[in-house]
Amino acid sequence: MQVAILVFDGITVLDAVGPYEVLGWLPGADVRLVGVETGPVRSAQGTLALCADYTLDDVPAPDVVLVPGGPGEEALRHDAEVLGWLRDAHSTSRWTTSVCTGACTLAAAGLLDGLEATTHWSTMETLRRLGATPVERRWVQSGRVITAAGVSAGIDMALHLLAVEAGDEVAQAAQLILEYDPQPPFDSGSPAKAPPHILQRLRERLTS
Amino acid sequence: MQVAILVFDGITVLDAVGPYEVLGWLPGADVRLVGVETGPVRSAQGTLALCADYTLDDVPAPDVVLVPGGPGEEALRHDAEVLGWLRDAHSTSRWTTSVCTGACTLAAAGLLDGLEATTHWSTMETLRRLGATPVERRWVQSGRVITAAGVSAGIDMALHLLAVEAGDEVAQAAQLILEYDPQPPFDSGSPAKAPPHILQRLRERLTS
Repeated sequence: MQVAILVFDGITVLDAVGPYEVLGWLPGADVRLVGVETGPVRSAQGTLALCADYTLDDVPAPDVVLVPGGPGEEALRHDAEVLGWLRDAHSTSRWTTSVCTGACTLAAAGLLDGLEATTHWSTMETLRRLGATPVERRWVQSGRVITAAGVSAGIDMALHLLAVEAGDEVAQAAQLILEYDPQPPFDSGSPAKAPPHILQRLRERLTS
Repeated sequence: MQVAILVFDGITVLDAVGPYEVLGWLPGADVRLVGVETGPVRSAQGTLALCADYTLDDVPAPDVVLVPGGPGEEALRHDAEVLGWLRDAHSTSRWTTSVCTGACTLAAAGLLDGLEATTHWSTMETLRRLGATPVERRWVQSGRVITAAGVSAGIDMALHLLAVEAGDEVAQAAQLILEYDPQPPFDSGSPAKAPPHILQRLRERLTS
C-alpha cells in the first residue's frame, strides 16, 4: 500500500508525522514523503527540516494521498503543479486525505466540491468559500475522502483509516505501540472547550 | 529559551515532533535539532529523514534538553560523545527531558540514578537495570528531570513543561492551536487498556 505524504515549506510538521507513525502499520506500507522537488523543506517555525525523498512525478498513483497543513499550505492552493498532481492522484487513489488546513488545498483542487469536510477550527470559513461544506468533527469521511481537524487530529483520522484497511486489531496495536493514551494537562483543545478569552486572542492573532 | 532536541538514525519521529510543536511556544523559543553530525537522520522505519541543523558542540548549554526514543536509541547508550554531551548539558540545563525510550539514554548517562522516571511500556525493566526507579505514569517529574512514557506522551509532557515555564494560559493556547482534543477511535493506548492478546503479541514481537 503506497502512501504519499505531501511536504512543503511552511508545513506544520505534526500534521504529517502523526499519520506517518500510524500509516506505517498498513499491510505492505510504502510511505513516501513527496515534494515538488526532492530535498529539505522547512517547518512553519523554520527550525526543523524534513526531506522530500520523492518528487510528485515519482509517485503518480499512490493508494493513499495525505495533504498536511500549516502556514505554507496557502501557497499550494495556487500551485498548478500540486493541484494537477492531486487531481490525477485522486482519480486512482483508494483514499485521499488531509490534516488541518490541508483540506483547503484539496478543496482548491476541486476535490471537496459539495462534500462535507473539516479543517483547523480557524479556517472553516475558508473551506466553505472553496466549495466544501465544513463540519466541526474530529474527522469527516465523505466516500473515499477523509479530512481531519487541526494538527493532532491526524492521529485519530489515521487510526480510523488503518482500522478500515487493516482491521481494528491492527489499529489497536498501533495505538498501543504509540502509547496513545492521551492525558493532556488541560482541556483546551477545541474552540468549544478552551477559555473564551484564549480563543479570542488566538483568532485575533491568526487574522492579523 | 534554547531547546535542544537530540536526533539520530532510528528515531521515532513523533517522539521529537510532538514536543517540537509545543515547545516552540516557550517565550523566546530557540528550538534546535541537534545530532552527532549535521545533516539528515532517518526514522525507525527508514522512510522519513529529519535534518540535524546543529552538532552537539554547537549547542553545549541548552536550557531544555530533550532526548527522544526509538529503535536507534539503544546505540546512544554506548555512545561516549552523546553521553558526555548529555552530562555536560544537564549540569547547566533548566530541564532535562526524555520521551519514550529516550529515558534509557538519560539513565545510561547516569542522570536518572535513584530517580523515579518513566519510558515506553516495553522498556520499564531496562530502565530499572540502568539505575532508575520506573513508574507507570504519563510523565514523571523528578526535580528538573522530566521523563515521558511512549511516543505520544511527549505531547502531554511538553504541555506540562510549557505550563510550568510560561503559565497555564500559554499552554492552553498551544493546545488549542494544535487542536489537541484527542478522540482516538479505540481505547487501546496502554498495557492496562489494550486487549490482552494484542499486548501479548506486541511483547513477543518486541523481544524477538
